[in-house]
Amino acid sequence: MKNTITILAVALLVLLVSCRQQVGDPVPAKVVDPLPSWNDGAAKQSIFDFVVRVTDSASPAFVSEPERIAVFDNDGTLWSEQPMYFQVVFTVDRVKALAPEHPEWKSTQPFQAVLEGDMKTLAATGEHGLLELGMATHAGMTTEEFETVVTEWLATARHPTTGRPYTEMVFQPMLELLDYLRANGFKTYIVSGGGIEFMRPWTEAVYGIPPEQVVGSSIKVAYEVRDTEPSIVRLPEIDFIDDKAGKPVGIHRHIGRRPIAAFGNSDGDFQMLEWTTAGEGARLGVLIHHTDAEREWAYDRDSHIGQLNRGLDEASARGWTVVSMKDDWSRIYP
Amino acid sequence: MKNTITILAVALLVLLVSCRQQVGDPVPAKVVDPLPSWNDGAAKQSIFDFVVRVTDSASPAFVSEPERIAVFDNDGTLWSEQPMYFQVVFTVDRVKALAPEHPEWKSTQPFQAVLEGDMKTLAATGEHGLLELGMATHAGMTTEEFETVVTEWLATARHPTTGRPYTEMVFQPMLELLDYLRANGFKTYIVSGGGIEFMRPWTEAVYGIPPEQVVGSSIKVAYEVRDTEPSIVRLPEIDFIDDKAGKPVGIHRHIGRRPIAAFGNSDGDFQMLEWTTAGEGARLGVLIHHTDAEREWAYDRDSHIGQLNRGLDEASARGWTVVSMKDDWSRIYP
Repeated sequence: MKNTITILAVALLVLLVSCRQQVGDPVPAKVVDPLPSWNDGAAKQSIFDFVVRVTDSASPAFVSEPERIAVFDNDGTLWSEQPMYFQVVFTVDRVKALAPEHPEWKSTQPFQAVLEGDMKTLAATGEHGLLELGMATHAGMTTEEFETVVTEWLATARHPTTGRPYTEMVFQPMLELLDYLRANGFKTYIVSGGGIEFMRPWTEAVYGIPPEQVVGSSIKVAYEVRDTEPSIVRLPEIDFIDDKAGKPVGIHRHIGRRPIAAFGNSDGDFQMLEWTTAGEGARLGVLIHHTDAEREWAYDRDSHIGQLNRGLDEASARGWTVVSMKDDWSRIYP
Repeated sequence: MKNTITILAVALLVLLVSCRQQVGDPVPAKVVDPLPSWNDGAAKQSIFDFVVRVTDSASPAFVSEPERIAVFDNDGTLWSEQPMYFQVVFTVDRVKALAPEHPEWKSTQPFQAVLEGDMKTLAATGEHGLLELGMATHAGMTTEEFETVVTEWLATARHPTTGRPYTEMVFQPMLELLDYLRANGFKTYIVSGGGIEFMRPWTEAVYGIPPEQVVGSSIKVAYEVRDTEPSIVRLPEIDFIDDKAGKPVGIHRHIGRRPIAAFGNSDGDFQMLEWTTAGEGARLGVLIHHTDAEREWAYDRDSHIGQLNRGLDEASARGWTVVSMKDDWSRIYP
């Protein structure tokens, strides 16, 4: 009889333990900070407050998961953009790589200036010159060939001052923020003035953002069947510029709903933040302010790249959060 | 002593039952057919075979989840398209609704023909006439206003012969197929010649496809701020025609990866199936053949809507599955 009791008691205990393990008995959790590279302060708090408000089903500002769309500029917001946009470096490198096939470039501007490293002459060719370089290096191939070119360049190219691969000049605090938002049911998108096909090959590995969630500037493409092999060919003609007032348009075209959170760093992102934060309910608009000359770069109102002027003037009145990289981030790169 | 044993035994039993319930004890599952409205046969089998090949991690044709992209035409593939595209009916209804604000339409073609129900004169105005009607009814308002118009129309409009709401003229077997693919890790997209903004307001509720997974034809839009209220305004200018060779282009623009499965019903879908099935590894191309004059409509090579000619000729050689609505579907509408 005693044996029976012992056996039953042991069985009960074993079952109790195994059962609790199986269903995931709540253990006292260490509170883990999802944004460890963000210093405590108003900026970090505004992000936490917003996420709690839209994800707490008892909150009047609750937003259902499918509507939790967050959009991020890329250059200067998710990765650095100095001393020039990384896609411009790519373009210059491509001109050099393709030069042997184009002997005429030695004596044709703006190619000659690039090959001779004559930045003054290059700058004098202005926007038209840059466009010509862009088309000569970004068009005239299939989309799959271009993807390979971008991937190979990123694998070997190094930043002129940091010596880092460009994909390691992404901002650690923003990687944490992307993860934190996704863990809270957000769908994260890039909405960048940069070329959409220049970003798509690597955004999934680096940011966790798949190609279908990348919005950017684009050139035209055409579907072609050569022999029996279909391909999509890149044409030397601008299709869409995803900058300034183009950003809300690009968001509308690709996503078809208004985001509830937008992150940028320059006046090129102004309309994106404006469009996002003018919607009903809880909204979050964030500007990353480059204030850290030591660890990254410091620039805003007078910069030729990533100029931030109107945004700084109006952020406070519009309820946007301004993040000081120097003060709000304990770490810049991974 | 006996009491103790009884208590322990009962406790054990209770715990056992509750524990097994909590962890979801596997009960002998009834094998549930995920495609109950599909008759057994080669078409249904080709779908099952494909899904097993790409989802079985031991299969040489295994495809990782993010790459499981499936694209669906809408008109004639997910819902009916006779006696005319439903968006054309919408356009006609909008002309009538807007006529009081446009007294000049009474004597201006092609509006006059619509208002007088004179389909012969309307047809004579050709593509240009239809385009003019489209712009007069689809542009000149904000995107949010247009969404409201579409939603209200769908709530009240009824099909001329079936008397059903248009959103109940979707194909039950395709709804099951969409669910089945999503349950197997596929991301499902619409890629339609129809207007992207005509579809987005209702595709999530009807097909489970969110607005950001809808690709379609579009008109241009512009971002505007009136007073302090930003909006996106629809302009009377074609931006993109998502048909024929435009479909792979639309897929590239919106998704940025090549689908592994494509579903269409007309030669307007030919290039989409061609592009999809020319990729490496296991691919699925499916044409829905309208063969059921009794339950739906029967048409193919000579139809003015949804013409299917080249597709029928080449499906077999290209390894595409042709679904006969009459023979392969036990049910048409929900």
